[in-house]
Amino acid sequence: MQTIKVAIAGFGSVGRATANLLLSRRGRYSQVYGADVRLVAVCGSRSGLRDENGLEADRLDNLEDALTGPDFIAASGADILIEAGPSDFRTGGPGLAYISSSLSTGRDTIVISKGALVHSGRQLRELARLSGAMLKLSGAAAAALPTIDLVHHSLKGCEVLEVEGILNATTNYLLDAMTTRGIGFDVALREAQQGGFAEADPRNDTEGWDTACKLLILANFGLGANLTMDDLNVQGIQSVTTELIEAWRREGHVPKLVGSLTHLNDTFRAEVGIRTYPLSDPFANIRGKDKAIRITTDAMGETIAIGAGKEPLATAAAALKDLEHILTARASSPLAE
Amino acid sequence: MQTIKVAIAGFGSVGRATANLLLSRRGRYSQVYGADVRLVAVCGSRSGLRDENGLEADRLDNLEDALTGPDFIAASGADILIEAGPSDFRTGGPGLAYISSSLSTGRDTIVISKGALVHSGRQLRELARLSGAMLKLSGAAAAALPTIDLVHHSLKGCEVLEVEGILNATTNYLLDAMTTRGIGFDVALREAQQGGFAEADPRNDTEGWDTACKLLILANFGLGANLTMDDLNVQGIQSVTTELIEAWRREGHVPKLVGSLTHLNDTFRAEVGIRTYPLSDPFANIRGKDKAIRITTDAMGETIAIGAGKEPLATAAAALKDLEHILTARASSPLAE
Repeated sequence: MQTIKVAIAGFGSVGRATANLLLSRRGRYSQVYGADVRLVAVCGSRSGLRDENGLEADRLDNLEDALTGPDFIAASGADILIEAGPSDFRTGGPGLAYISSSLSTGRDTIVISKGALVHSGRQLRELARLSGAMLKLSGAAAAALPTIDLVHHSLKGCEVLEVEGILNATTNYLLDAMTTRGIGFDVALREAQQGGFAEADPRNDTEGWDTACKLLILANFGLGANLTMDDLNVQGIQSVTTELIEAWRREGHVPKLVGSLTHLNDTFRAEVGIRTYPLSDPFANIRGKDKAIRITTDAMGETIAIGAGKEPLATAAAALKDLEHILTARASSPLAE
Repeated sequence: MQTIKVAIAGFGSVGRATANLLLSRRGRYSQVYGADVRLVAVCGSRSGLRDENGLEADRLDNLEDALTGPDFIAASGADILIEAGPSDFRTGGPGLAYISSSLSTGRDTIVISKGALVHSGRQLRELARLSGAMLKLSGAAAAALPTIDLVHHSLKGCEVLEVEGILNATTNYLLDAMTTRGIGFDVALREAQQGGFAEADPRNDTEGWDTACKLLILANFGLGANLTMDDLNVQGIQSVTTELIEAWRREGHVPKLVGSLTHLNDTFRAEVGIRTYPLSDPFANIRGKDKAIRITTDAMGETIAIGAGKEPLATAAAALKDLEHILTARASSPLAE
């Protein structure tokens, strides 16, 4: 049986959920792929743990100081890196160094955080191409909601003409609460912060940047566009008032924060902002923390996907879907390292 | 450049749409896969045409008598068969002989008609396994709506707990017309028949058999079940009255003909019948000839897909998605023949 060594960089709630889900699926990996999948290293920003024989779940609460960084991961001998660190699209975040190091040495890399992909997507793709490493990013492109999957697999052969997506759970929760319960933005936000699904500084979500990141990743990695954040007009939901919501409600319309993309004559236009939908549109009924995408193609018309997984498990499952796609692909062509 | 020869058996509206779409995409196949994809044979039940240098669109209206049958296809030297004949799940239909012959000689086979897959699915899988041929069937499993795709690709690694699907366009059109316009079953049916999207004998749709076929294909080929039609309780929409519709309407519920599947402890239970949904459920808003599926998994929660492609183009595009998946797979491992 082939041994596949996996490392996880970034060990917050998503990294931990990914580790635990991976460990719980070892029987499946052995049975379906004939692979002994071992978790050989994990690390957060300040501490980590490494064991080439594989870490078990009970050791993951006792990380050791200073065991962290791209060199620590490289020394673990991992075949595959899962990057789950904090996202920062303005700098690439801590993920950028991990992902660059991993791809440049031919290590297949599964990216969950969006920052590096938005900041340096083109360079990372080039690193992967040069080394032959696979770069997978379902976890960064709306996680359990299939997005790039749909384009690359389910709609293969079709030309994508238009995309619109409700891609950010926090803003959908806020708008949904404001619309269905008539509460104001500030009240809804405090509620979401207390529930733990809005950040103390919520602007990355509420000003539309998280939606913009996912849209940009979908455009560049899914559709072959070459957009940067400067190409996008990004509007958030922070100025949506109860009066506006009430006016829309009277017209039978439901507001959503939508990332949209049009593709015409090899030109992509992308933007983020409020759109309103009549109640008969599936988008009007995307509730709470659910997400959705509508992809219009030349030959298959409209395809809509709606995802309603619970976090952080759903994102972990998206990353481990990427892992299985790598195991499948590598079964016919061996690992680069 | 590698030459890939394709034959199409079954040359009604779907077969023709598939031929024309394939011919229009030759530039793409050459550019993306380095493949010179040629349509080397087509045949209906009584006539056909063959040319190993490839048929062009303008010749497809002049088929010659008696050029038909599995031997005719075999003699064309096709690498890949697309089967698009009429569907009959009680006998396997004419497709069964084409598909069996094709798979047993190692020819990759794309199936659009459901009959043979329902009637002899296990035997066909076994033929494919023995010869190493690929058997693809997106066109038979609700066509442009991703179903097996979702399970095998987008939800990979997750355990499917439950499936429910609005899988038949004709019955959804009829129920939608009855619900939104208050007309009776007979009036709605005549309208659909005049519009050309209900058969003169509509029972295969209205009594739930088409939904049952798609559900069974999804269960057996998508989830590894081993169900036969005898295992399913199948109810149709033929006895839905305007009084029933009105009673549901008063409760704010919308009726849909749904194929459903539960998966517990390696046991699958499947049935077809009416379910009703509140207006806030995306299933309540699947309109006209659209289709939808909801798949519940352990790690990703609920994933819904909605498809709204126009026929026969959308089914043709589903079959040619399968073709591209074969081209991708065969790029790393050569054609069996």
